[in-house]
Amino acid sequence: MDNKDIDYNALFVGDKSENGDNYINELSRLLQSHMGWRKNYIPGDISAITDEDKRSPEYQATLQRQHDVLTEVDHRLRQGSVPWMSAGRYWGQMLSDTLTPSMLAYSQAMLWNANNVTLECSMATSKMEAEVGDEIADLLGYKEGWGHLTHDGSIANLEALWYMRQFKSMPLAFKEVVPEKVKGLSEWELLNMSVEKVLDILKTLTPKQIDEVKAHSSRSGKNIQKLGKLIVPYTKHYSWLKALDITGVGLDQMVQIPVKSDFRQNVDILKEKVKELASKHIPILGVVAVVGTTEEGQVDEVNKIVKFREEMKKQGVYFYIHVDAAYGGYARALFRDENNHFVEYDQLKDMFKKHHVFNTDVHIDKDVYEAYKAIKDTESTTIDPHKMGYVQYCAGSIAIKYQSMRNVISYFAPYVFEKKTAEAPDMLGSYILAGSKGGATAAGVWAAHQTVPLNITGYGRLIGSSIETAQRFRKFLKKLKFDINGKTVEVYPLDNPDFNMVDWVLKVDGETDLEKTNKLNEKMFNMSSFYDSRVYSNLFLTSHTIFKKDTYGDSPVPFIERMGFTKDDWEKVGSVTLLRAAIMTPFLHDTKTFEFYTEGIAKAMGEKLQQIL
Amino acid sequence: MDNKDIDYNALFVGDKSENGDNYINELSRLLQSHMGWRKNYIPGDISAITDEDKRSPEYQATLQRQHDVLTEVDHRLRQGSVPWMSAGRYWGQMLSDTLTPSMLAYSQAMLWNANNVTLECSMATSKMEAEVGDEIADLLGYKEGWGHLTHDGSIANLEALWYMRQFKSMPLAFKEVVPEKVKGLSEWELLNMSVEKVLDILKTLTPKQIDEVKAHSSRSGKNIQKLGKLIVPYTKHYSWLKALDITGVGLDQMVQIPVKSDFRQNVDILKEKVKELASKHIPILGVVAVVGTTEEGQVDEVNKIVKFREEMKKQGVYFYIHVDAAYGGYARALFRDENNHFVEYDQLKDMFKKHHVFNTDVHIDKDVYEAYKAIKDTESTTIDPHKMGYVQYCAGSIAIKYQSMRNVISYFAPYVFEKKTAEAPDMLGSYILAGSKGGATAAGVWAAHQTVPLNITGYGRLIGSSIETAQRFRKFLKKLKFDINGKTVEVYPLDNPDFNMVDWVLKVDGETDLEKTNKLNEKMFNMSSFYDSRVYSNLFLTSHTIFKKDTYGDSPVPFIERMGFTKDDWEKVGSVTLLRAAIMTPFLHDTKTFEFYTEGIAKAMGEKLQQIL
Repeated sequence: MDNKDIDYNALFVGDKSENGDNYINELSRLLQSHMGWRKNYIPGDISAITDEDKRSPEYQATLQRQHDVLTEVDHRLRQGSVPWMSAGRYWGQMLSDTLTPSMLAYSQAMLWNANNVTLECSMATSKMEAEVGDEIADLLGYKEGWGHLTHDGSIANLEALWYMRQFKSMPLAFKEVVPEKVKGLSEWELLNMSVEKVLDILKTLTPKQIDEVKAHSSRSGKNIQKLGKLIVPYTKHYSWLKALDITGVGLDQMVQIPVKSDFRQNVDILKEKVKELASKHIPILGVVAVVGTTEEGQVDEVNKIVKFREEMKKQGVYFYIHVDAAYGGYARALFRDENNHFVEYDQLKDMFKKHHVFNTDVHIDKDVYEAYKAIKDTESTTIDPHKMGYVQYCAGSIAIKYQSMRNVISYFAPYVFEKKTAEAPDMLGSYILAGSKGGATAAGVWAAHQTVPLNITGYGRLIGSSIETAQRFRKFLKKLKFDINGKTVEVYPLDNPDFNMVDWVLKVDGETDLEKTNKLNEKMFNMSSFYDSRVYSNLFLTSHTIFKKDTYGDSPVPFIERMGFTKDDWEKVGSVTLLRAAIMTPFLHDTKTFEFYTEGIAKAMGEKLQQIL
Repeated sequence: MDNKDIDYNALFVGDKSENGDNYINELSRLLQSHMGWRKNYIPGDISAITDEDKRSPEYQATLQRQHDVLTEVDHRLRQGSVPWMSAGRYWGQMLSDTLTPSMLAYSQAMLWNANNVTLECSMATSKMEAEVGDEIADLLGYKEGWGHLTHDGSIANLEALWYMRQFKSMPLAFKEVVPEKVKGLSEWELLNMSVEKVLDILKTLTPKQIDEVKAHSSRSGKNIQKLGKLIVPYTKHYSWLKALDITGVGLDQMVQIPVKSDFRQNVDILKEKVKELASKHIPILGVVAVVGTTEEGQVDEVNKIVKFREEMKKQGVYFYIHVDAAYGGYARALFRDENNHFVEYDQLKDMFKKHHVFNTDVHIDKDVYEAYKAIKDTESTTIDPHKMGYVQYCAGSIAIKYQSMRNVISYFAPYVFEKKTAEAPDMLGSYILAGSKGGATAAGVWAAHQTVPLNITGYGRLIGSSIETAQRFRKFLKKLKFDINGKTVEVYPLDNPDFNMVDWVLKVDGETDLEKTNKLNEKMFNMSSFYDSRVYSNLFLTSHTIFKKDTYGDSPVPFIERMGFTKDDWEKVGSVTLLRAAIMTPFLHDTKTFEFYTEGIAKAMGEKLQQIL
């Protein structure tokens, strides 16, 4: 396979099932191959199911029963599914058509039903998972890193917090088990030991000592409340609350950093907070940066956090950095050339041009570029193939900076030998949070990655297209205006989108009541979502979000002021309801298609406003 | 759909792909239907991918690239997969052919890519998951219960420990937030409050008070080390270690109960231990009973544990009971009649006869029956569709005794309304440990359950067949004898298998060296597993396990003595290596097929022994 630019038109079933026949043909080929594999296994063996068996009434009745059940499945799915494969009617959740190579590989591999928890049950697919893990670590810039698939992003975040907790507690365990290794260090110094230093000390220990240290780590249940605070932005996903809860670190240890009016974490406040904690000798378990917030698609300035960590390290203050790039992670491919090298900012334009990434003039913010670049200097990252990897559920993943980090959380099952070194560990289950894991998932992600390279020729083009569509959509919204029964309705999108998400508010011109405006947008959402029973024939679908004062502070104030509301309104009402679109569709890159659909949804929105007002 | 007995010959692809054509035809029908759904969505909308697009060289090249990648996937899978669909060559891990309705429904539903984390993204499949959850709760006897799918059994166990930790901590939180509700109770009494009592108190609180109490629960990070011990049998799955670690309860809080020589948890020792802890005023977080141990398939006496709990409750000592039935759970269907009623023990024989469950005289132990019956009186159960549910990965599940229990761990995401009561919660993600979850999984399990009822007509027959095969296989092994170069090799299976797993040891007659016998069995495993590069043409495949003194205590002594070794040998060597077969194959029910394959593998084992000795 060469490095030519992919044409993603060939890699989706299509909004109108344009590639449907090819999908069924490819799948049929793969399934036939699988059937041949079964048939030819020890050809001399007899068939357990004979033709006579198949002629029995019981067999026929059961087959009929299966047929009827599947008809019901089909019926329910057609009735109760949201048409997000639509090129331009669905502007809602992080969902779109998914990559055919991934679905096809999954559908075939499923029949082998491998379990990647151990190599014994999954030679082929465990190797694929190891390769996928390496690819993901490389995509993130972790040159000595390691990655694996998780069931979802919440589990990946939970695993990350487990890493943080374990690493923070290791120096205290050194002190108990091998005190000579940390001689002269105060508890404060122990609680500010870097991941690198912990790994260095581990290298000097015998396997027995390592086991002993791990037994004295936070895994014992001890010292957890000593390990300090987890710092997250207000825009964190709620899985971080669950992770704090589940790990026993506790919600009381969460410190939230406000976001700026651009909805990126306010790094200045983060700095103050860290310094304040340090001055009180309260350790910091870790800092979470979000790359692609779920509600706004914004990208925290990872680079500034990394740089600040370096400064603080010199002052004896260390914290682990985790990037929650569940949503935005794959976009790092946009900055990698066809040889997977991360390019310089001033070379981006030429590279985009060479690979025909954009049709219009698209600006990629330098801050965003620098944030992505700096991921390589963080300790771990959550990145979901089932979001911007355009892979079907369930496929999340996590990558860590150094492969050896995994030894700090690892276990060994009593019934498994580790008798050889393979690329895939014999017992993946002992290095990760989860247990059984379908090999088919690995086959799906592997096929996606091999077909769509993790650089500008593949995912870069695909995600670039979604970013371009988002920027165009935002411009389109900004110009949109409805005249409804003598009232003018205008559209206010958020400024400065970092990624491919667009949030906006519909507002009647001259309206001074924020609450009424919220109601208007809520009604629009209700009429344009699953709450409307005619989802399949609904000409415009979207999702929504609510910025509340208790989670967003005053960050939305400049935005609502732009709409003509005041800080007082904000104080009084305390929330703003926005319509929200994660724009993943790969089908609106073409100007003609974009215009057809935006015209169509403008008309549909107008009709709904007519009903509402 | 009626209640007739299913003929499972119709519901697997088949060891020789006997139903392969039907599989491909059904799938093609379902996929065509899906394609029609896409094509007919707003028929006036234009296609985003035009015929002209499809004629472009880029499109053609990309399609070719996908084709080549899929060919490579197919190649790797055929080379690196284990043929566990074989009717009788594979006697190893918990793997077999899986149910076609489940795979077919999955393969279709995947194209809709619903996410059951919120109803907004999964109307059809969330409803299926709610129905599946109810079915599972009902199967376990939880009449007021609730269940949901998890990614795997390890996650379900982790969620269970989260439940235990939360419930144990609630009374301490009551004391802090609403002291009047627990007036006069000592800390010891608070730490022995039953789940029912906690739920009763919660019912009397306002939503605001509930939030406040939850904020003061173990979710805060506080009091976790006060909550006491988790009691597990030595035969627990290692995911319990991970769960103790991850939840912050800590491995130091684990108390392990030895197993008897039948490898069931020793309930007498459990009783002593509980009483000892109680006498020291050390609370008990919970007790785990295993139904279907991963290494021996044994079933802990849940009924005795439940009864003992009732006794202790009267003495003011309460503990949560969780059943880890990841492996054995579905076998509860064996005891449910066609109307899903749990039948009396003395009626079993008639029911089995009526539904043609067994071909030979199969004895179901009363202890096993009583253990299954008593699951209804426990607080929660892990039960994996992807094990004895014959569903492909990833599909685990957990069920709880009372639906209201879920409110003790729940969260609400800021961006989701809970504006109506649906059968499926609007935001499943806030009631469970994980986040995103594929709707296709729910469709798969739902289709399996509708086709194969969770009673004697469906899963009962299917699992009954596997139990019968296991009993026959054990008898076959017991009689087996090899004459190799003047040496006689005999086979020693474990006694009293509770379920469908058979472990056995090959031993040279007269051999007095346990270590040499271990080596012999290890060699047999190496020659009969993925370590052998010719897996596909290998005529006998198995797995293995090792009972070690540090995890099994002296429980294996009677077994090794039966082989002619002594307690001294056990002390010296400290382990015994066994070959191990989880017998899931649905294809050996027929006597002719059973005899064909057992004859075949006896020959293959003999040839391998020839090479080894």
